[in-house]
Amino acid sequence: MSASSPSPSLATDRAAPGQIETLASRYARLRARSIALASPLSAEDCGAQSMPDASPVKWHLAHTTWFFETFILECFEPGFQPFDVAFRVLFNSYYNGVGEKHPRAQRSLLTRPDLAAVRAYRHNVDTRLLALLAEQPGEALNDLVELGINHEQQHQELLLTDIKHLLSLNPLQPSYDASLPQPRSVANPLEWIAFAGGKQRIGFDGGGFCFDNELPCHTTYLQAYRIASRPVSNAEYLRFVEQDGYDDAQSWLSEGWDWVRANALSHPLYWRPGATGWEEFTLAGTRTLQADAPVVHLSYFEADAYARWAGARLPTEAEWEHAAATRRISGNFADDGLLHPFASAQDGLAQLFGGVWEWTQSAYSPYPGYRPAPGAIGEYNGKFMVNQYVLRGGSCATPAGHIRASYRNFFPATARWQFSGIRLAKDTD
Amino acid sequence: MSASSPSPSLATDRAAPGQIETLASRYARLRARSIALASPLSAEDCGAQSMPDASPVKWHLAHTTWFFETFILECFEPGFQPFDVAFRVLFNSYYNGVGEKHPRAQRSLLTRPDLAAVRAYRHNVDTRLLALLAEQPGEALNDLVELGINHEQQHQELLLTDIKHLLSLNPLQPSYDASLPQPRSVANPLEWIAFAGGKQRIGFDGGGFCFDNELPCHTTYLQAYRIASRPVSNAEYLRFVEQDGYDDAQSWLSEGWDWVRANALSHPLYWRPGATGWEEFTLAGTRTLQADAPVVHLSYFEADAYARWAGARLPTEAEWEHAAATRRISGNFADDGLLHPFASAQDGLAQLFGGVWEWTQSAYSPYPGYRPAPGAIGEYNGKFMVNQYVLRGGSCATPAGHIRASYRNFFPATARWQFSGIRLAKDTD
Amino acid sequence: MSASSPSPSLATDRAAPGQIETLASRYARLRARSIALASPLSAEDCGAQSMPDASPVKWHLAHTTWFFETFILECFEPGFQPFDVAFRVLFNSYYNGVGEKHPRAQRSLLTRPDLAAVRAYRHNVDTRLLALLAEQPGEALNDLVELGINHEQQHQELLLTDIKHLLSLNPLQPSYDASLPQPRSVANPLEWIAFAGGKQRIGFDGGGFCFDNELPCHTTYLQAYRIASRPVSNAEYLRFVEQDGYDDAQSWLSEGWDWVRANALSHPLYWRPGATGWEEFTLAGTRTLQADAPVVHLSYFEADAYARWAGARLPTEAEWEHAAATRRISGNFADDGLLHPFASAQDGLAQLFGGVWEWTQSAYSPYPGYRPAPGAIGEYNGKFMVNQYVLRGGSCATPAGHIRASYRNFFPATARWQFSGIRLAKDTD
Amino acid sequence: MSASSPSPSLATDRAAPGQIETLASRYARLRARSIALASPLSAEDCGAQSMPDASPVKWHLAHTTWFFETFILECFEPGFQPFDVAFRVLFNSYYNGVGEKHPRAQRSLLTRPDLAAVRAYRHNVDTRLLALLAEQPGEALNDLVELGINHEQQHQELLLTDIKHLLSLNPLQPSYDASLPQPRSVANPLEWIAFAGGKQRIGFDGGGFCFDNELPCHTTYLQAYRIASRPVSNAEYLRFVEQDGYDDAQSWLSEGWDWVRANALSHPLYWRPGATGWEEFTLAGTRTLQADAPVVHLSYFEADAYARWAGARLPTEAEWEHAAATRRISGNFADDGLLHPFASAQDGLAQLFGGVWEWTQSAYSPYPGYRPAPGAIGEYNGKFMVNQYVLRGGSCATPAGHIRASYRNFFPATARWQFSGIRLAKDTD
Repeated sequence: MSASSPSPSLATDRAAPGQIETLASRYARLRARSIALASPLSAEDCGAQSMPDASPVKWHLAHTTWFFETFILECFEPGFQPFDVAFRVLFNSYYNGVGEKHPRAQRSLLTRPDLAAVRAYRHNVDTRLLALLAEQPGEALNDLVELGINHEQQHQELLLTDIKHLLSLNPLQPSYDASLPQPRSVANPLEWIAFAGGKQRIGFDGGGFCFDNELPCHTTYLQAYRIASRPVSNAEYLRFVEQDGYDDAQSWLSEGWDWVRANALSHPLYWRPGATGWEEFTLAGTRTLQADAPVVHLSYFEADAYARWAGARLPTEAEWEHAAATRRISGNFADDGLLHPFASAQDGLAQLFGGVWEWTQSAYSPYPGYRPAPGAIGEYNGKFMVNQYVLRGGSCATPAGHIRASYRNFFPATARWQFSGIRLAKDTD
Repeated sequence: MSASSPSPSLATDRAAPGQIETLASRYARLRARSIALASPLSAEDCGAQSMPDASPVKWHLAHTTWFFETFILECFEPGFQPFDVAFRVLFNSYYNGVGEKHPRAQRSLLTRPDLAAVRAYRHNVDTRLLALLAEQPGEALNDLVELGINHEQQHQELLLTDIKHLLSLNPLQPSYDASLPQPRSVANPLEWIAFAGGKQRIGFDGGGFCFDNELPCHTTYLQAYRIASRPVSNAEYLRFVEQDGYDDAQSWLSEGWDWVRANALSHPLYWRPGATGWEEFTLAGTRTLQADAPVVHLSYFEADAYARWAGARLPTEAEWEHAAATRRISGNFADDGLLHPFASAQDGLAQLFGGVWEWTQSAYSPYPGYRPAPGAIGEYNGKFMVNQYVLRGGSCATPAGHIRASYRNFFPATARWQFSGIRLAKDTD
Repeated sequence: MSASSPSPSLATDRAAPGQIETLASRYARLRARSIALASPLSAEDCGAQSMPDASPVKWHLAHTTWFFETFILECFEPGFQPFDVAFRVLFNSYYNGVGEKHPRAQRSLLTRPDLAAVRAYRHNVDTRLLALLAEQPGEALNDLVELGINHEQQHQELLLTDIKHLLSLNPLQPSYDASLPQPRSVANPLEWIAFAGGKQRIGFDGGGFCFDNELPCHTTYLQAYRIASRPVSNAEYLRFVEQDGYDDAQSWLSEGWDWVRANALSHPLYWRPGATGWEEFTLAGTRTLQADAPVVHLSYFEADAYARWAGARLPTEAEWEHAAATRRISGNFADDGLLHPFASAQDGLAQLFGGVWEWTQSAYSPYPGYRPAPGAIGEYNGKFMVNQYVLRGGSCATPAGHIRASYRNFFPATARWQFSGIRLAKDTD
Repeated sequence: MSASSPSPSLATDRAAPGQIETLASRYARLRARSIALASPLSAEDCGAQSMPDASPVKWHLAHTTWFFETFILECFEPGFQPFDVAFRVLFNSYYNGVGEKHPRAQRSLLTRPDLAAVRAYRHNVDTRLLALLAEQPGEALNDLVELGINHEQQHQELLLTDIKHLLSLNPLQPSYDASLPQPRSVANPLEWIAFAGGKQRIGFDGGGFCFDNELPCHTTYLQAYRIASRPVSNAEYLRFVEQDGYDDAQSWLSEGWDWVRANALSHPLYWRPGATGWEEFTLAGTRTLQADAPVVHLSYFEADAYARWAGARLPTEAEWEHAAATRRISGNFADDGLLHPFASAQDGLAQLFGGVWEWTQSAYSPYPGYRPAPGAIGEYNGKFMVNQYVLRGGSCATPAGHIRASYRNFFPATARWQFSGIRLAKDTD
């Protein structure tokens, strides 16, 4: 991939090289980055909601602030007064332990408070939280701020996927940022990398932050397996499309087939037939589909069907993590300023991190011995462990420092609007 | 009702007294009034859509402009070029004869063009249309401009009812304009005004503009009847609510009863239980329910059930028109700057015009000999003549010069978000 | 139409000629006819329900019995004891005044009581009711028995339309009675019969029975009009189908067009493309579509769209009734044993009665001065007077003595499973 | 549990003791048992369908026959002619490889062929299949017959759960067989049985039949765990009900909580409040809830919520299988003739088999190296491996010889109409 300079709007998300950053500095940088991500957008863009699963940008900006206010300021700030008592309900996402919440599908109806008020809310909470960090340093506070930072990083990715979905439904097919570079990219031939089986340790056991769903680190047992050296490319997936992959029940899970029929699907979410071939809607608008770039915006059902059609399967999350465990975490992250996946000329097992989230065949379930945190914070992950599938590795919309080999993302089998793609696996013959 | 000065935002909708206004001047005044109606609102407010039946304010501003551009400029302007070819689809409401249209329920997703672009669109079309009026005066053009003016007046009312519905769903219960006056109002006792039956002429036969659905003027036959001297008040309707009106199937049409059950309804749309009694959400925010003011925001089903419970019935539209035929058209219109119905101390048959739209028992159907206009304009009224019920008289959100005794408004039996109320009728014993 | 002998199963529905029949005899004959109508069917056939709007045959047999038990025996029989207390709920259709009722859409789940038990229920009630008639003759009783007879006649027609709908959804396309004759029929050319307008009396004012919705007889005013001499034929409707009638929005009411699109409709309910042309599913199974026979099983939306496409309109119910007022009530009724509409060679204004129900453009609404009966019986008609359209004249599935010129049938605009067709009307030029 | 004699209707499902039964004899016995299961039911009972997930009894009788005809006779019988070509579509459940299929939700509309015809179909196929077994013995044929027998055993269980669901929706609450015995049963105190972790073999590796989803037998790794000695009882679950378990979001998975709210659930599917305490609808009708009997007819969501509320969790399927691996397969199966779960006084790890299916926390997914069979038969299990959860151990409606420690049943997380209950597990502290 040719070098490309990051988008100016994201330039704030860079710590100066060679220095250890304070938590307060990281907090301030994170918060500025959210504002930068929203900067190409009008207040109207920030208020709209394309579907119940997506949220308005304004809501992301407010909810992440609510998280810091509710779980930190309310506990630690002496004489805490809420910025606005109504926000406790308006910007609660799903924490039943906190109380009532505004219906998810009606977030676009919250035209008040307006975007300016939400920015004022952010500023207020930032001032108070930075004061708190200066006055009351301590492990409990730091841990919660760390959680809040990681939480907001997740919403930064959702902000991008949600605004992409919204813009894609506008007949004008407008861009988020038309100046995003689009490097030419060439993929290496797909190779199979073999791994021996046996007992393996899975889950987080390093220092620093992880989510509770990555714990505890535990022993599991893997059969020997092979994993593809890179994600499936658009050219490869196009063969599936052209050879009637969406019209043949044999490749599909039963529920996936019903879903394909009911929604009359015949290609990935953002592919559009153009005058001279397939095009793809991106955050930079509609562009020619690049043959070698990883295919992206697939549901689990599509990823699974493609794998079966290709004589392979999706990896389990344990296989993926085992393969990734010793790899350096680098790749095509949001900080590149591309906001789209591209092929890499890297040899060997490549592109595990960044680019596209890779569907695994694993249902999202608790690790043996999993314990959610007490209180409302414990609702963060555990209560979603049903009817969802695990994705690994991060994407081109993930902040660079956010990901780990043990990181578990999860979505329902029909979700297509994330930057989700396919890495194939096989049994060892 | 005590005197009240009009809201400043609506002051543009007044011609100078004592002069005959040109069509161009009326056009310009109309168009400025739409902008004035939107002026208390942010771009975010203007972009949201609360339900498929309602439209964003921005969409109203654009669609009314599209109407002038498509049905007038495109036909009359030499060398016509559309302001933006995409707008032909984006802002078509329901005219199949014009071609494709954007899905109604997804109007809030059109964050582009933004509000500023729509205002530029309005300005462009205004300039061209006023030039056309100056250069090519003629009956055909004038008639279409007159239609366009009446069309935009309808959307001015919808703009108010739609924004009220949107704001009502916000837990903050924000106001459109908190400074709207709220006069104290006292209702006269309800009296029954008797009319003899016999052959009567119904429909428009005056000079000036009317919609095609008011034509042809024709003979009908009425039995003798009595009609209430004023609309049903909040206090009267409250008795129905308190005496379990919403819990007793006997008062309801079968389909209405199913609808009440399915939606768990127990009071009018904008009533809220307050700490010290019933309150009502208005365009000025939540206010104490005024006992004597007309009850408003009722569906046909509620109006019909109340009438049956009260031992009366809704009037037919012919009865209503006959009763109203010789009355002066004055009342509580949008130009009052109240934007809410209030009681009147007027004697006799009062408040037929303005205040609340009055449900009739009449299904919306073509008059004998009805002929829609040829072409796409013919889709204006005729194709909606099924499963809708006629309302008469205009409301507090209707522009003052817009209404006539023969004017036929229509909505489905479940519609509650219009300023709709009840005038009772009875057979003559 | 060539002569045809009635189906043996219906032969019980004939009074001996030349004698005045007692009410008891009419009751017994009616009740036997219901059993005869069910006789070609298995218990399984009688238990199934094809959609919420249709009922199982067994339910019809039980509900009509419930009507006699609840509204007559319970009031008049000394020491009344219900046959089975549970039946009061199970077989109540929609009378809220009687109490709870079993959910309409779940009638097929009532496998108990079985068909034999329902027949025993019928036998029990018949015995008791005939005893009552013998012991307590009187006007109040006689009037209710008359109502019950007319009620059951309505259900006899529904029994046929409901079983036809059920069988039509079976891929085997089985017949109700394969031996039903299918006479060759030839239609006269369609002519327009002109009627002068003016004041007219509408509604029932004869002696004998009528439903409350035909009352009171009252004056109305008609413009001069023309009405077609016979119903629209299959051949005529086929031109609409072949000339893309279902693909052109211009012919349709807006709501009708949405309904056609949503359901992907392209022809009448029971037409099927056959190897050598259109076929039609009938109670005798699938048969070749007869060009001259009246088109049947159309919704209001289809009837209205056809009329508009043909440059005509549907008649109002007052026009229809006025045209029919002096005609003899004869035609193609269920007692013919054909159970399908056929063309007639009768000259002049023909086939008003029997054959197909004729959609009028009139919404079903109360006549001026309409008063439903007190108590639960008052729910019979009045509470359905919204979002329904009036059909006139009876059909090939209507019992012969059941119909009158003033008779008002009604169904929602989407209903297609009744024997409903089109008679055109026009304004007088 | 006290001894009880089997219901006469099931007495055919017993091989004579002490002899090795031929495949032909097992086939004949199996087929007779299906007929015996239907024998307490009328043709009407056999034709109804209570929900899309359930099938009519007649459909079960026909589909299982279709399976033998399509997958065996069609391949092996010389000069094969189908019994009825239409049945290929009518009675295909979900095998896309076989071609079209009748819509699942409309199975109750198939009143033709009637029950007698389906019995004739069964008799015809039985005759031909027994002839084939006599003439062409061989491994390929035998394996398919074995699969067909196991397939029909699964449908025998579904026949019972489906008819129970149907009868439960009838307000009469009729019984399938009122003479089913109801032994008094007393549960032992719940104990925790500890198992050490480590590498374990999971999956089928015995001789004889298994389904493909139990293969391959493979190594997995378990952490040490504890498992409850018996299923959760009604008395224990009642405490959850009474302590507002259905009203407190904290115990529930997020999707489960939404489901509980949307369906307004407050207790297990077949519990009913009675005059003197909780009652339970059973195949013998409504009976007093037995405190010590296992709670049954729970969804995964309810089982999981109870476990969390109780400070425990559901076992994984590997834990369950490991615990069960060496246990004798005995318990409360359908052959007991009770058709309801009862408590057992057995010491130690009890009631793993029979009684209630035990929800595990494991999503239904392919074992490492899983390969479905080629062709349409390969659709049997594999294509359902998404959004379903594994249940283990069989129930009181499972045929006695049908179950194994490695047997994997699976249903969506909302399914309640199976005989599904809870066995708790815990981590080792």
